Parts: sequence; structure tokens; C-alpha cells
Amino acid sequence: MAVNFPVPVPANLKPVPGIELGFAEAGIRKANRKDLLVMTLAPTATVAGVFTLNRFCAAPVQVCKAHLEGMRISNAPIRALVINTGNANAGTGEAGLANANASCAALADLLGCGASQILPFSTGVILEPLPVDRIKAGLPKAIANLKADNWYHAAEAIMTTDTLPKAASRTVEINGKTITLTGISKGAGMIKPNMATMLGFVAMDAKVAQPVLDHLVKVAADKSFNCITIDGDTSTNDSFILMATGASDVDVNDMDSPEYAALSEAVIALSQELAQLIIRDGEGATKFMTITVEEGASVEECRKIAYSIGHSPLVKTAFFASDPNLGRILAAIGYAGIDDLDVSKLNLYLDDVWVARNGGRHPDYQEADGQRVMKQSEITIRVKLARGDASATIWTCDLSHDYVSINADYRS
Amino acid sequence: MAVNFPVPVPANLKPVPGIELGFAEAGIRKANRKDLLVMTLAPTATVAGVFTLNRFCAAPVQVCKAHLEGMRISNAPIRALVINTGNANAGTGEAGLANANASCAALADLLGCGASQILPFSTGVILEPLPVDRIKAGLPKAIANLKADNWYHAAEAIMTTDTLPKAASRTVEINGKTITLTGISKGAGMIKPNMATMLGFVAMDAKVAQPVLDHLVKVAADKSFNCITIDGDTSTNDSFILMATGASDVDVNDMDSPEYAALSEAVIALSQELAQLIIRDGEGATKFMTITVEEGASVEECRKIAYSIGHSPLVKTAFFASDPNLGRILAAIGYAGIDDLDVSKLNLYLDDVWVARNGGRHPDYQEADGQRVMKQSEITIRVKLARGDASATIWTCDLSHDYVSINADYRS
Repeated sequence: MAVNFPVPVPANLKPVPGIELGFAEAGIRKANRKDLLVMTLAPTATVAGVFTLNRFCAAPVQVCKAHLEGMRISNAPIRALVINTGNANAGTGEAGLANANASCAALADLLGCGASQILPFSTGVILEPLPVDRIKAGLPKAIANLKADNWYHAAEAIMTTDTLPKAASRTVEINGKTITLTGISKGAGMIKPNMATMLGFVAMDAKVAQPVLDHLVKVAADKSFNCITIDGDTSTNDSFILMATGASDVDVNDMDSPEYAALSEAVIALSQELAQLIIRDGEGATKFMTITVEEGASVEECRKIAYSIGHSPLVKTAFFASDPNLGRILAAIGYAGIDDLDVSKLNLYLDDVWVARNGGRHPDYQEADGQRVMKQSEITIRVKLARGDASATIWTCDLSHDYVSINADYRS
Repeated sequence: MAVNFPVPVPANLKPVPGIELGFAEAGIRKANRKDLLVMTLAPTATVAGVFTLNRFCAAPVQVCKAHLEGMRISNAPIRALVINTGNANAGTGEAGLANANASCAALADLLGCGASQILPFSTGVILEPLPVDRIKAGLPKAIANLKADNWYHAAEAIMTTDTLPKAASRTVEINGKTITLTGISKGAGMIKPNMATMLGFVAMDAKVAQPVLDHLVKVAADKSFNCITIDGDTSTNDSFILMATGASDVDVNDMDSPEYAALSEAVIALSQELAQLIIRDGEGATKFMTITVEEGASVEECRKIAYSIGHSPLVKTAFFASDPNLGRILAAIGYAGIDDLDVSKLNLYLDDVWVARNGGRHPDYQEADGQRVMKQSEITIRVKLARGDASATIWTCDLSHDYVSINADYRS
């Protein structure tokens, strides 16, 4: 949970025509908390997703991938998503797959569609059997309260160690018509997404052709959920899903069209907002850090260096302490694995403060200036490599006592 | 500093003929602590070292490398080492190099040798100018108390956040003669050595040919200091040095000889002991973990997986809490970057407890068994990949509140 850090409470969430949301308290791990979410989609909807690259990818992720693949062959649209918290259904072998399929079958029966038209998602503890009977028992309750304006409740229903629900809306005008986009996400630990965050869902009422949505989901993930890290732990369940309900009559079927340009800009901006909310509510976070690496030979090396800084426990604890022990940033740059990096050309800035010039302490750098910036709750670390035109930005948080407390006590 | 964890106090340290050690309180960062160490070597000595691969390698590391290289050309032996704590002389640019050279020149003047016959080492805060005048002022004091049996004081003089000095001795019989080996090391944070630990020095009185010592230092580092991690932060100053004084008449000049076999076994065992002491005294450590990955296709992939587990903040905090939340280990294996890893064949053991079989929870696994092992202060995590014959072992510690406290407060 974030500590001493303002995470905005979601407000003004807009229903997206063509999608309804229902929730239940299914008692999956703990009593009296929303832990089951169903989203139903209009039959006109297209859906696309990106998923964790963790080799231990959870059973629901495997089923999601298979159902999205099957959709391309059968043309039978995805009709609903079922999401539970409290149990990740990961590291559960064949039984886990059977349980994920059973959840889909149970919801399909209730909705009158095929099991392969359901996408399942789970988040929570790994290596424990999914209590699928509780999910089955909860589904009728969730369906009973399906509504278009349940987004706030939906964001609550997918929380684990999150302290606040994460959701946002925006609209974009396309061809004189208003397209609505609303999304939800969850953190708050095991966050170093690789192709997607733990759970992120963005819906819109545009009518988006499947190949266009397939492309957009990758672009949006790469510019949002794939740019964050809390602890460097890539989850087994990371999933990021775009849903275009087609309820409006705005068609987006050409990636070179102005319609695509407008929609993709809105999707990326909303996805970045949702991804950054995960960091702002990062476990134990007291500071939000933007790390930008510029003048690199490639985007990949810029990302490597940014993540090396963002993962360093020594950097993260120094930021927690507001201690400008900034040599730790140089050390993290140095071990990022860029073999031919010439550190004698490197420059480091903390917000507006020029800390290191040509690889050494800037002669004008004053500890007091570093101290002033370190005390802020939002800080930008900027590294200039002087070896090219590429750049990359990631977002992360500090490492506090509360991170240790939360993760030492998570299951108790 | 280690917490609730028994780190042995060095005892029975044996002098190594041909080497003397002197120390001083030079006030480099704080008053009234030993922070300067000089080691002098017999003119018969050979010296070899391995150093950090961090691109921001500190000024003294650069000078060490140059002086060792120069020794090969000039044949003028290394006569002394000068080591300071309190300041790493890293991220200090040209001024840092000048200061490292000035330290060597000052000691060379006092000893009557060339500056290039001195190896300098620094450890402490990065990005701050080295107070070289305090080092110069301290050197005569250090030389005044040079003694062969100062190893305990020497181990104290290189401490930073270490709670206890780290040193060990052993002897080995070669051709009926006794060779003495004594070494010291220091941690205790920014520890994920890459070719060497932060600082490790091992001396022996055998007469070892330079090419043999050059080989042995790499072998010993790979089997000891390169197998440990506390926080994944590879230091700018990592250095591991072997010194063979040649004071005995035991010659080791052939890597295929029984003499080499006996000596290398002793050097590796002593180096492992010194490396493990760093983990036992790891910042905030309450548990010592051995991570062994077996049945891999290559040593490299076994090491990747072992480090992925050993660096995971979620795994480390679970061990701190004695919480058998072992799915976190599976997640860390899954994101280690082994693209073709078939997790359905994987087995996981915690000491004698079989936790996961064929990628899923073992049907006989009981939480109580996991709990029993997790409460121990020494734990072995064993992973079997079922894809080859390679294996690798690393040593690490847990992540506690005290790690955060120590590193949030390090400079204050």
C-alpha cells in the first residue's frame, strides 16, 4: 500500500456503452470483500490482450490465450470476462487449467454462450488450489448486479494489496462523435510487467477491427504497463486487455487513418494513467519516480539502464530516506550491462539539478540542491548518455519499511 | 548489519610469512575508527586480482589494473596495498584518478619503492571527493604499526556497514610442508559481485608463478565471491586479490601439478568462507539461504535462475517473515529469462521438503512442513529443471526492515 502518498480516488467514471459489470463477495480468500468480477460484452465487441512472459504463466492466462486464438478461427466473439482475486491459480498444474476452464463453463452456462467465449483472470496467492466452487457460487450474484456504471465497484473487486481502486475515464472526439474510454487496473506488488501489467482492462465503445485492436494493445502496453516497475518481480498473471464494444458507430479499421490516430492517442494516455496509478499505490511507496534515459544508442539500452536504476534497492531506499546519495545511481548505471558505455561522457540530473557532468560530480553541485529535490514526492531522474538519439522513460517508486511489512505479512 | 544471526568472530588468524599489516585512524569519514590499512609484501611475492565489471569502475580499481599490467612489463613486483574505507573514490572523474595515484606515491615514498608497485583500494560513499590529505597523513601511523599478526585489525580497518570483521585462516600440507593462508573480506551492501566482491584479500606463503596465480584468482572468484548476492547491486569497487608471498619454499608453477591441486582447493575453500561471511553479515540479514539449481542445460542458465530467485524482493521478504509463500519462488524462476523452460517438468525443494512436483504443488506438500523449514536460520532452496546435467549454487540472505533502515540512514 502507498504510504504518505496521494493516490487519487477514481471519480467521474463514465459507462462505456456495450459493456456491463457485476461483482460479488465470493469468499475466495477472505470474507466480506468484493473478490469476483464479471464483465459482459456486446456481441459486436472485439477484444485483444497481451500477457505475461513469465514461463510460469498462470492457468487463466493460458486459457485466455487459447480462447483468443480460438476466436480468430471460430469468429465467435468473446462475450464476457471473469476475474477473481485472492488466488492466482498459478503453479497449479493440470488441476489449475481444469479449474480455469470450469469457471468459464459455469459463466457460459449462465450467459448462454460457449465456454470458449469467456476469458478468465486470477490474481492473488500462487501455488494454492483455486476454490472454484466459491467462484461458481458467486457468479449468479455477480450477474444479478450487472450494470453499465459499475466501474468503481469493478476496480474495487480486482484489488489485492492495493489501498485504493484504480480507474479512469476519458473521451475523444472522432468524426464529430464522442467515444468513451474507461479502464481499471490493479497492483500493487510483483510489478515489473513484461508485455502487460498484473491486471489492466480498458474498454471503449468504438468499433475497432480485430487486427487494429491487436496492434493497438501491444503499442499501448509498451508505452504504459511495460514502463513501470515496483520490485522487478514479473508476475505469473500479468494481463492487459483492450475491449472495443462497437456500440458506437465510429469505425476504426485502418491503422493509417486519422480515426486510429485519435483513438490510439486516447488509449495510450488512459493506459499510462492506469499504469502510473499502480506505481503511485505501489506497496509501501512514498515517492513517485520518473526515470528518463536519453541520448542512447538504442531504446533497448535506455530501458536497460532505466530499469537498472529503478530496480536498485540502494537507489530506492535512498529515495525513501530523501537522502541524495546519488552515487548509487551511477553504480546502477554502471552495472546495467552496457559493455561499451563510456561513463566519462555521462550526465545526470535530478529534476533541474545537474548532479554529475562527464561521469563525475558536477563542480557546481551542492548537496543542498539534491536534498531539496529528494524531499519532493515526485522526482525525475534524467540520464544523458551522449551516444545516440534514443530515449526511454519508466516509472517506479521507492523502497520503504512498509514494502517489507506488506510482503512479510501478505498471507497472514 | 546482520540481525539475530550468528556471524562468527574471527579467531586463530595465522600470520602469513612475507606479509605485514598496519592500520590507522585517519578520520577519512568519521573520527575514531580504523579506516586505513597498509599491507606490505616480500619482494618475492606474486599478486593477481579480479575486479568489478561495473562500467563506473572506481578510480582505485583503474589504477590497480594499470599497476598490475605494468608489473607484467617491468617485472617490478607489487610491494604494498593501501586500502581506505569511508570513501569509494568512484564517480570522481580525473580528480579521483589523481587522488588514487597520489595515495600510491605517498606510500611509495615512505616504503622506498615506485608508485606503480602499490595497489590502491577504496570503499565507502560514491560521488564524493577522496580526502587524500587525510590518507597521506595517516600512512606514517599505519606503517609504524606494521606487523605480521595484525590480520584481525586489518579486517576491522576495511569494515563499512559490516557489524563484525571478516577473516579466516587455514593451512594446507604440500610436499610435507605447511602452507598458511589467511584472508579478509568486507560487505555488507551493494553486493552482487561480478568477477569479485567488494573487497577480498587472500594471502599465502607459497611461491606461486604469476600465470598460475592469474588463473587461480579467476577460478577462486568464480566459485566464491561471484556466487553471492545481497541486493543485486554490483559495486563500483569490487576487488578480489590473491597474494603469494613466496616466503616458504613450496613452489607452485604448474597448473597440472598435485601442488596446484592442493593449494587451489585451500584457496577456494577459504574464499568461499570469506564470501559466505559477507552474506551472513549482509545488511539486515536474518537468514542465510543457499540456492542450488540442478539439471540445467548450462551453468549459465542455472545461475540465471538462482540469481532471479536470490534477487526477488518478494522471495526475500517471505523468508524474512518465515512465511512459506513459495509460489513466489516459482514466479522468480519463470521470469529468469529462460525462454524455452518447460515448467511442467520442474521440481522445487525446501531443504528436505518436496514443495512442487512437475510444476505444480506436490500433492503431499503440507504448509506445516514448509513452515518448519522457513523458521530455520539456514535454508537451502533446490530447483531441479530436468533438462540437463549442469548445476550452480549461490548464497544470499533475506530482505528485512533493517536493510531498509541501514540503507536509508547510511550517510547520516
